[in-house]
Amino acid sequence: METSSAVIEQLLVRVDELESRMQIRDLASNYCHGFDKRDYEKFLSIWWGDCVWDIGPPFGRFEGHAGIHAAIHDVLWPAWQESHHLATNQVIRFSDPDTATSVCDVDCVGTLTNDEGCQIVGATYSDVLQRRAGEWKIKQRDVRIHYFNPVPGTRLAAPAAS
Amino acid sequence: METSSAVIEQLLVRVDELESRMQIRDLASNYCHGFDKRDYEKFLSIWWGDCVWDIGPPFGRFEGHAGIHAAIHDVLWPAWQESHHLATNQVIRFSDPDTATSVCDVDCVGTLTNDEGCQIVGATYSDVLQRRAGEWKIKQRDVRIHYFNPVPGTRLAAPAAS
Amino acid sequence: METSSAVIEQLLVRVDELESRMQIRDLASNYCHGFDKRDYEKFLSIWWGDCVWDIGPPFGRFEGHAGIHAAIHDVLWPAWQESHHLATNQVIRFSDPDTATSVCDVDCVGTLTNDEGCQIVGATYSDVLQRRAGEWKIKQRDVRIHYFNPVPGTRLAAPAAS
Repeated sequence: METSSAVIEQLLVRVDELESRMQIRDLASNYCHGFDKRDYEKFLSIWWGDCVWDIGPPFGRFEGHAGIHAAIHDVLWPAWQESHHLATNQVIRFSDPDTATSVCDVDCVGTLTNDEGCQIVGATYSDVLQRRAGEWKIKQRDVRIHYFNPVPGTRLAAPAAS
Repeated sequence: METSSAVIEQLLVRVDELESRMQIRDLASNYCHGFDKRDYEKFLSIWWGDCVWDIGPPFGRFEGHAGIHAAIHDVLWPAWQESHHLATNQVIRFSDPDTATSVCDVDCVGTLTNDEGCQIVGATYSDVLQRRAGEWKIKQRDVRIHYFNPVPGTRLAAPAAS
Repeated sequence: METSSAVIEQLLVRVDELESRMQIRDLASNYCHGFDKRDYEKFLSIWWGDCVWDIGPPFGRFEGHAGIHAAIHDVLWPAWQESHHLATNQVIRFSDPDTATSVCDVDCVGTLTNDEGCQIVGATYSDVLQRRAGEWKIKQRDVRIHYFNPVPGTRLAAPAAS
């Protein structure tokens, strides 16, 4: 049998990876929570300072925290009255204990500004993630939008307060 | 190097938290399975006896297992012909090893009773979870419904049996 | 106190189950990624050679890798111009360390061939999973489709390239 210190060393590596998976999942979730609930501090917290957020058409490519700020405050939040993202199908791969890639699919339902109709968006996010000083954040997110179109005749409406 | 018993003690704490995360995710999933598949035993099993389920308008606030029973049997299942919830974006935070909060977003597609059209609902669930005698359940779930409206002209329909 | 080797033995069992959960989640995700992104190698990699994929009406029941090939290439990919699955609500149960069952709910948005309108599908997948030689794959997937119908007037459309 292996010495128990070698076994413990391996356990530490495996538990570290499991914890990393939880933290990387939280990044994908907090992207949605921060964006949709308009919590900029939460949204910003998922990105490294030297990040790239490449949304592509129709929104563009943004670099660093200044780019995140411009994308959110000048482009995206002004474009949407409301949005509701669901992130699923996340698959994470590690190239070393501090570097990972992730792919997830996202469904978004929302209403654009100056437009009363419901829009639906389907996209795939391909991320590069890095752990620095013990914390995981997104280094790069590439977005591929599969569809982005109205559902004619449908309007999102909250229930009336009681 | 630390003594191996201290290292093992820390590993036990970390693995316990990882397992707690899995169990808390199952609660969010079994809410959907129990509700949509009309499995009351499964649905009830996620709630502590002294729980609060605060759905807000248009459905109300319910307390304890008697409240869960009334909400399900007198209000919600009678209101829906069918429903299909998807729970995603779950972020869990622990305040101690036996207490956690969770936020998740939910998308629901369904058909109301006495109404042929498809309805869509988007909501956020904010939970307080407690572990008692080794088992995690929901102590409180607060619901915020973002939208709840029809998709005019759309009817949910199952494929014909072969 | 227990001898530390017994404690370590239990930790190994628990960490192994946590890792199995991650791998089983990846199977559910890679089903979606492989199917929707038309990556047959990825799609095939989730199935054991003696698998059963029982979709039921309107698509049928398929056995083994030959069945998977026929389902994908002769039936399903020809039927869809595009598809976008979201897998959620996954609950995994182990009957032993190498055998598990899983239930998840899936939402799909897509466009059929020779039809311009958007279709929506809601389904539940009930799986039997086996680990062989250290690798988890699907032994059987039973599909129950709850609804499969058009959203009249809605057409999926990608944003124009810049």
